[in-house]
Amino acid sequence: MSLQKLKQDVCEANRLLGSSGLAPLTWGNASGIDRERGVFAIKPSGVAYDALESDHIVVLDLDCNVVEGSLNPSSDSPTHAVLYKAFPDIGGVVHTHSKNATALCQMGVALPCLGTTHADSFAGTVPLARVLTPDEVQNRYVEATGDAIVEAFAELDPLAIPGVLVHHHAPFAWGPDVQKAFENALVLDICAEMALAQLAAGRTLDPIPAHLSAFHWNRKHGSNATYGQR
Amino acid sequence: MSLQKLKQDVCEANRLLGSSGLAPLTWGNASGIDRERGVFAIKPSGVAYDALESDHIVVLDLDCNVVEGSLNPSSDSPTHAVLYKAFPDIGGVVHTHSKNATALCQMGVALPCLGTTHADSFAGTVPLARVLTPDEVQNRYVEATGDAIVEAFAELDPLAIPGVLVHHHAPFAWGPDVQKAFENALVLDICAEMALAQLAAGRTLDPIPAHLSAFHWNRKHGSNATYGQR
Amino acid sequence: MSLQKLKQDVCEANRLLGSSGLAPLTWGNASGIDRERGVFAIKPSGVAYDALESDHIVVLDLDCNVVEGSLNPSSDSPTHAVLYKAFPDIGGVVHTHSKNATALCQMGVALPCLGTTHADSFAGTVPLARVLTPDEVQNRYVEATGDAIVEAFAELDPLAIPGVLVHHHAPFAWGPDVQKAFENALVLDICAEMALAQLAAGRTLDPIPAHLSAFHWNRKHGSNATYGQR
Amino acid sequence: MSLQKLKQDVCEANRLLGSSGLAPLTWGNASGIDRERGVFAIKPSGVAYDALESDHIVVLDLDCNVVEGSLNPSSDSPTHAVLYKAFPDIGGVVHTHSKNATALCQMGVALPCLGTTHADSFAGTVPLARVLTPDEVQNRYVEATGDAIVEAFAELDPLAIPGVLVHHHAPFAWGPDVQKAFENALVLDICAEMALAQLAAGRTLDPIPAHLSAFHWNRKHGSNATYGQR
Repeated sequence: MSLQKLKQDVCEANRLLGSSGLAPLTWGNASGIDRERGVFAIKPSGVAYDALESDHIVVLDLDCNVVEGSLNPSSDSPTHAVLYKAFPDIGGVVHTHSKNATALCQMGVALPCLGTTHADSFAGTVPLARVLTPDEVQNRYVEATGDAIVEAFAELDPLAIPGVLVHHHAPFAWGPDVQKAFENALVLDICAEMALAQLAAGRTLDPIPAHLSAFHWNRKHGSNATYGQR
Repeated sequence: MSLQKLKQDVCEANRLLGSSGLAPLTWGNASGIDRERGVFAIKPSGVAYDALESDHIVVLDLDCNVVEGSLNPSSDSPTHAVLYKAFPDIGGVVHTHSKNATALCQMGVALPCLGTTHADSFAGTVPLARVLTPDEVQNRYVEATGDAIVEAFAELDPLAIPGVLVHHHAPFAWGPDVQKAFENALVLDICAEMALAQLAAGRTLDPIPAHLSAFHWNRKHGSNATYGQR
Repeated sequence: MSLQKLKQDVCEANRLLGSSGLAPLTWGNASGIDRERGVFAIKPSGVAYDALESDHIVVLDLDCNVVEGSLNPSSDSPTHAVLYKAFPDIGGVVHTHSKNATALCQMGVALPCLGTTHADSFAGTVPLARVLTPDEVQNRYVEATGDAIVEAFAELDPLAIPGVLVHHHAPFAWGPDVQKAFENALVLDICAEMALAQLAAGRTLDPIPAHLSAFHWNRKHGSNATYGQR
Repeated sequence: MSLQKLKQDVCEANRLLGSSGLAPLTWGNASGIDRERGVFAIKPSGVAYDALESDHIVVLDLDCNVVEGSLNPSSDSPTHAVLYKAFPDIGGVVHTHSKNATALCQMGVALPCLGTTHADSFAGTVPLARVLTPDEVQNRYVEATGDAIVEAFAELDPLAIPGVLVHHHAPFAWGPDVQKAFENALVLDICAEMALAQLAAGRTLDPIPAHLSAFHWNRKHGSNATYGQR
């Protein structure tokens, strides 16, 4: 895929972020990586989604040096870079402040698999990334956010569970490409909204039986997937 | 009705599913049956709602063999077929993951008739279909989902209560045709939303007096119905 | 005002009902009265809001005989007639199944004045109309709904509190004309939504101080009102 | 900046208020000040947002005398004037009845910093302005509302915490200009919505660690801010 095509895809995913309502004002950013070139393309900082064009997209190497583009990249770029380095199979990352997932982040609640809606996209509990230390916040906040996410996946497959709730902050999602990362961010917020309704009803958040969640996830993502046009 | 007209109606109902918000991404499917020909028309799997055209709609016999169409049918087709075989008077089936009805499914809560809004479309409690066994999930998941729904209606009239909440999963609705099935799916989600508000307020879900719910349902659906243009 | 103008206003208010989301499907109706002629104009039964034109609006006398129009009038027409007869100063009536106000109806909760948003339109608690008896339901349901509303206003001024929550059912609102009746139906639903949030938070619904609610209502509606362009 | 430009900006912010849903009907008003001329421009009272044009905007001095414009100014103008006099660094003020922030006002709950979404715009708890006395309500309600807000900021920096929840009433927000005041009103409502979800879940509203909220606020607003295009 050409860099130009990657920038178009990233631009389109960022515009979707805005129109979807998952990222009010400029509270979110989408990126996609070109693994061969070792660079990723990301939203410029503080630019309105509906004003974005492909040419505004900034291209960075994995040390966050600007390779292409005249605007400042998203201030969250170092988190994206940490995720791309730690999770070699992901192709896109999306950060939002979508209100339902963010409410769970604020409450410090991980999101178990409460039904097949969740199981179709996430093969188990979406974990809560730990609180950063004062030293991390002060000296390397954005990278440390990435590190805390990677820690939370020490024993998890990031493509099987393509998202995380960052404590006190907001969600990140990812996927094989930036479009799928956007979709996972959307699914995460919808599942969070249903979890909030369950908590409001005074229920605990208990996962569905493991054989059911595994069946649903495999039907869509396993080697013998039967969903969609193939 | 010609097959072409049935495919148009099914296409239109699926597009409504998308624009209504009842089925985010591609999380739902609508079908309609031609009882004379013994075939039903259904959404193709994984296709975006707003890209759907009549020609994409797949026609299946009641054993789910493709009779017409070049795309893969919805992976939920066997559930639709089970319902058409068990409920001989229904003409359309709609499956959604609408968030309010799905939240009740996830919580394992049936939906009693809490007011006349419910009574105008559903003549009593919308039941909860039972959890499938590990064997059912593994070997015949989609058909077993239909069987569990049919079991829940052993003593209920499916046209009087045209919908169900499938435990751990999501709702199905139906009706005399696919348009009415869509409307029943919409009503079910709105009634579920009001039930969630009632649960959040710490109230139990107690049905309204039976004479009131019966009166409302009969006013719209009984032999002496007075509603609408006749 | 000519009957033609009244029908246009009623048509417009019904279309607003549909586009506002206060009345999904065809779950609501707006009417306006011509006191001199002793007739009121109302939505036809079961017609989609966005297909409504002025010529579809049905004109009835206060005994609900059709005076003008070829369609069946709303099945709720007798309730409107009861209200017009009992409340001689109102000019329009709107019935909805708006989800927040309806949820309070279903829970059997009256709506106290919880803040100035409420006080600007309703000078006190919006009452809950009583449950109908089995005999009333069976023999004169629609008129009895009106009677129960009128009973609830035995000691209240219907223009100071232009709406009601009907137990087990849904809200009615009214006002000096059909446009104001629509606005009061909208305000009632917004205030109900905030009350539901308060109940969900585990709080009781306690009214604000009477001097504050009286001040706000008078500022907009009293003889020395200072709001708006005069 | 010319007065004409200020009126355009104020007109635009008021139109945004309407389209954003933060101010149903005509329940809100936005203003902006010209500090050199000692005048502020504000919405006319009771005019629909989508009918507003720059020429409708009313210009007042800080004693609320009309300097320019033929319509009545917003009935809340004296509150705006009090805020402009007490907070010399603000350039715009926005009042809404946005439902989530208003629900907190009605419940009498201040809004602590529950996450970085809040911290990016508000450097600490959004305070609750006190209940007015009967005498204040009767004799100088609108000015007294401003006074109570100013009291709540006796030990707070109004640009660091650019908004307030007025008990029994609704929120006010402000900022360096009217556009930023609108954005702060939007952020306040989103943060209030997440707080309501947390209360509905039975959780208390505990602030995040001070070092984290300070870091986030400074990243966007401090002297070494790194966010956006500079």
